[in-house]
Order: sequence, then structure tokens, then C-alpha cells
Amino acid sequence: METTTVKAYGTEAADAPIHDMEIRRRTLLSTDVEIDILYCGICHSDLHAIKNDWGATSYPVVPGHEIVGRITQVGNEVTRFKVGDLAAIGCIVDSCGHCHQCHQGEEQFCENGWTVVFNSPDKISGGMTYGGFSEKIVAKADYVLKMPENIDLAASAPILCAGITVYSPLKHWKAGPGKKVGIIGIGGLGHMAIKIAKAMGAYVVVFTTSPSKIGDAKALGADEAVLSTDAEQMKVQSGFDMILDTVSARHDVNTYLNALHVDGSLVLVGLPNEPLEIGAFNVVSGRKSFSGSNIGGIAETQEVIDFCAQHNITADIELIKVNEINEAFERLERNDVKYRFVIDIAASKDKN
Amino acid sequence: METTTVKAYGTEAADAPIHDMEIRRRTLLSTDVEIDILYCGICHSDLHAIKNDWGATSYPVVPGHEIVGRITQVGNEVTRFKVGDLAAIGCIVDSCGHCHQCHQGEEQFCENGWTVVFNSPDKISGGMTYGGFSEKIVAKADYVLKMPENIDLAASAPILCAGITVYSPLKHWKAGPGKKVGIIGIGGLGHMAIKIAKAMGAYVVVFTTSPSKIGDAKALGADEAVLSTDAEQMKVQSGFDMILDTVSARHDVNTYLNALHVDGSLVLVGLPNEPLEIGAFNVVSGRKSFSGSNIGGIAETQEVIDFCAQHNITADIELIKVNEINEAFERLERNDVKYRFVIDIAASKDKN
Repeated sequence: METTTVKAYGTEAADAPIHDMEIRRRTLLSTDVEIDILYCGICHSDLHAIKNDWGATSYPVVPGHEIVGRITQVGNEVTRFKVGDLAAIGCIVDSCGHCHQCHQGEEQFCENGWTVVFNSPDKISGGMTYGGFSEKIVAKADYVLKMPENIDLAASAPILCAGITVYSPLKHWKAGPGKKVGIIGIGGLGHMAIKIAKAMGAYVVVFTTSPSKIGDAKALGADEAVLSTDAEQMKVQSGFDMILDTVSARHDVNTYLNALHVDGSLVLVGLPNEPLEIGAFNVVSGRKSFSGSNIGGIAETQEVIDFCAQHNITADIELIKVNEINEAFERLERNDVKYRFVIDIAASKDKN
Repeated sequence: METTTVKAYGTEAADAPIHDMEIRRRTLLSTDVEIDILYCGICHSDLHAIKNDWGATSYPVVPGHEIVGRITQVGNEVTRFKVGDLAAIGCIVDSCGHCHQCHQGEEQFCENGWTVVFNSPDKISGGMTYGGFSEKIVAKADYVLKMPENIDLAASAPILCAGITVYSPLKHWKAGPGKKVGIIGIGGLGHMAIKIAKAMGAYVVVFTTSPSKIGDAKALGADEAVLSTDAEQMKVQSGFDMILDTVSARHDVNTYLNALHVDGSLVLVGLPNEPLEIGAFNVVSGRKSFSGSNIGGIAETQEVIDFCAQHNITADIELIKVNEINEAFERLERNDVKYRFVIDIAASKDKN
């Protein structure tokens, strides 16, 4: 397969810094588009991947799965895009397209395995996929999202992962008017969840371990903010229809199960490495559920982009330059970011 | 409040045997019925209660919550029953009657706390309630079930707890034609679950740790039976819409979560004393749920009685005499029962 050279930012080892490198991307196929990448968000999963925390990293790795940019080439079978359109790519760049889940528009549950935008075997080009920490990307148009022109593009990049990851379960578990929704954690995911759940019309209570974030939660739109380390405050929590758990470290979930209403669900979107302990009485009493949710399908990702545009929702970001990526990862490891780093790829290209 | 004396079978301490004793029951109120108890099932919860395993037993305790008998007195406001009718009582004998859950017919989730048939503060009579290991019971007619005349009454007693405990989640999670349902454990609950899930039209796969129960599972109607200690057999399990977990000891639930289809639920009805560990990826991948369910409401208990009568479903029981109760509890502790003990209270009265 013919390829072209693209400048990217990646690493060859878990203990090596991110640096600029050349990668090869396939020459446009008739069903592909090429995107000139303008911005790419930095997610905690990128950090897990470069550090090989999940043991599945293939080096060199080029992370990045919150990608926005402008279409520069369009394959001759593609009708949805034209050169110059704004476009975006999230986690999913390919799936089998013919299983029950793909037909349902839930490519994230493709029965034959979907292709992640980076560090995933590329069924089309061979080799591994390379993500959005790069200047250009070529992808099958069916997995590319449309971005509206009238939005803050950099601050919208995190919708591609953080946004869809919280939107999908909030919608699935019917967050909306008359519903009491809890959000555990105010990070990249949590801060988007507050904004989206409020826009859906739910009553939103935020749980945080950081006294300093109580004020932030309210500024982000939460109706209430609870310090989860305060046992007295926690004891009186009740009546939640759904609680969205964005925490990626081991933590006590039983307190939250107890705060659910009958038939309520605690929905995990964080990925703690260690198992979580659940007491039988905490689910049996009140027919409660401890559930999980994983990003969303392509159609639903387009839906959250449009929902955010309509409700004027963007992420709160710190826009960084490509030479600040390593520092950003160090700060991300300390949870020192409000609330998402986004790399200004466009600015780096202006300097070339 | 006026009371009358009733012969019962209970104990004064966790380490004392069950013996006959006299208890006092209230004289009939206008909304009550009196039932001459004919049969009472023995559930593992009765064993937990007499042993004070959950730390909440008030002695003397008279267990028994799978009660069937014949109406002997009817309060003058009661229109649903007449003297001579067959009737039954399960776990619930009272609830607030005015909260959202009671209005929904889900008295088992009454927001103001429902009254258990035994070892529960009796809001009407004062003191604690006494269960079905006794010759007569007086209860509010609204919480009494109707029993059809044309059934095996002794073998139907376990429907009042084992039956409703599995029927309610099977119905709630929509077991039926086209659905693949797993049942973990073949005991009092599990063996009823096999029969009920089959009658609902589901494809039923049973998981057991006992090689000797593989044949039993099929005889009970299971489409497949899997030895859960066989890692090779477990690895190929997949596509379950729902798995009902009747196990009351600590066990690995992650293998079962992995066997669920997208959006599938593992539903616990057993009550292990120790917490269960759940890996985040096992719920996040496939939007799966680990849920619980607790008996069912009064209307639904009537529904399962009628469903079992219609489908000719009864429990497989060992009918014992009152002087065999202690031996039965010893055998129950060793899981040595196929599959439910039922006490023949009627026979003991004939001898008086």
C-alpha cells in the first residue's frame, strides 16, 4: 500500500519522552478523507498508553484520540465531505460494519473488534494505527465526524472522547428533567458531565475529594457539590436516579450505591486498575445496579458534537504547544489540569 | 391489644435448638384474616436468622416465611377472603401503603420500611413478628395471597420466597423467548429459577460447582448445564442476556460478567456476607451491569403463584415433620437438600 510521510509526536518506550518523529500514513483510498489536524486533546488514556499501564502498548506509539481539523483530500466515493470542511476523529476509525452492534450504530461494541485510532492493528493499512499527535491523518470517511463552523474548535476537541464518554451513559440512563444525577470526580470527564447533564435538564450533584473543587463544581453548573471525604455529608445523600463515576483509582462505591433510589444505577466510566468491592445488600436492597459504559458509537458521537454546539458547551481547556506535551503529561499524572490539555497542532505548523 | 396463644416452633438463642413454644398473636382486627397454617417452607434466611448471622435477630425467634394454609377467621372489613379459602403469606406482612413504592406495588422497597413476617418490629401489635413455624397466624388481609385449590399445596409453599425471589428479576430483566438466561447455583432458588425461566420461554443454561448436579439441572429443564469449576467450559460461555446469581457465598462474578452480551445484566439474589470484587473493564466493555433484586411486591407474589399454577410448577421438596426441623437445618447448612424442606405443620396438629 502506498504511503506518505507525516510529522507526528510519539515515543519509542514507556520511559522515553514524547518527541517529534516521522510516521507513514496510507495514500488516500476512495472511501477515505485526509484531515489536516488543527487541535488534539490529551486524555488520561493517552498517558496510560504511553506508559504501557495496560500492558498492550506497541512502540513507537503516537497517542491522541480527540482530533479536530480540516479536510484536505476526499476519496472519490466519499460524498459526506468536501475539501475545506471542518471534521473530527475520536476513538473509533474502523469496525466490521456488518455485526448486530455495528448495525445498531454501536461500533464501540463491534462483535468482531473495532480499530482504535492509535495503538491498534490497522486492518486496512497493516501495522498499527497512529493517533492525533500528528499533522495529518487519513481515515475511512464513515468514521469521521462533522464539526460545525461556529464553535471554539480547540475547546471542542475533548468532546470526541471526554464528551461522548459521559454523554452516552447520561442519555442511556435517561438523565433529564426530574432526574437527580450524581457525578463523581471533576476532571476531564467529570467537568463535561456536569455541563452536559445540566443541559439535559437533570438536577446535578457533584462529588469531589478536593475542597478546592467545591466552588469549581458550582461554577461549572452543578446544583450541589459534596465533599466525598466528609462522612456526615455523604450519609445524608439519597434519591439519586443515576450516579456517573468518572474515578480511575480504587475507591469505595458502596456509599454511592446506598445513595441511589430504587432501580438506580451507578455507572462507571473510569477505569481503575484494581477491582472494586461491592456488598451484596447494597445492590439487592432497592434493585440497584453497578454498570459500566464505554465511549459511544459514531452516530452518537456526532449527536454529542451537535448537542454541545446547540447548548454552547465546550471543555475548559489549557491550550499547549507541541513542545509542552511532556510537561502536560507530567501535570496530568498529578491531576494538575483544569480540565483538559489540548495541543495546538496548528500553531506548530505555522512555525515550520 | 387482645391476644390469643398459639403453638409455635422457635428458639431463644443462636446455639439452642428449635423447640415448641407458645407465642401470642393479636386477636383478629377488622382488616385481618386468621390462617390455620398447613405447610411452611424452610429458607436459608431462616437459618441465618436463628443463628443471628446478620446480627439483627431478636430472641425468641420463630422463623418461617413460606406459609400456606386455610382461612379460619375473616375481619368484618375484609371482602377478598372467606372462611375455608386457601391462603398464603410470604415475607411481607405490612408496609406504609402510601409511599411511591407502595403505590407501585413494590412494598419490598417501601420507603418507610416494611414489616417482615418474622423478627421484625410489629407496627400493629407491638413487639416482634413471629413467622410461619407455628399453627396459626393473624395478618392484615391486604398482605395475604390467594392459593388455588388445584395445586400441590406443600410443594407450592416455596413459591412464597424462593419462587418470587427469582420470578421478579426474571420478569424485570425480560427473560422470555429469544433470550439466553444463565442460572448460577441449583438450590432452593436456582431450581425454581430453572423451571420459571423455562416456562417464560427463555433458553436456560445452568452453572453449578457440583458434577453430580449436571444431570439434575437437565432433569429440571435446563437446556445446558455447565460445570463452573471447569475453566475450559467457562471460557467459551457467551451471549447471555441475563445471568441470575443465586449463590450466597463469596465467588468470582467477573467470569459471568464476561459471558454477558452487550447490555447484559448479572443479577444477584443470593446474599454473600463478604463483598464481591468487580473489575472495571468487565462492566465498561459491553455496558454491562451487576445488579441485585430482593423478593417482589404483593401483587407480583400473587402473579408468580398464579403463573406457577398455570404452568404446573412446584418446588422439589422434602416434606418433614415438626420434630425434624433441627435435623433439616443441619442438612440445610451442608446444602444437603433437594431442593427445599417444607414442614408439614398440618400433620403435627393431627397428632395433638
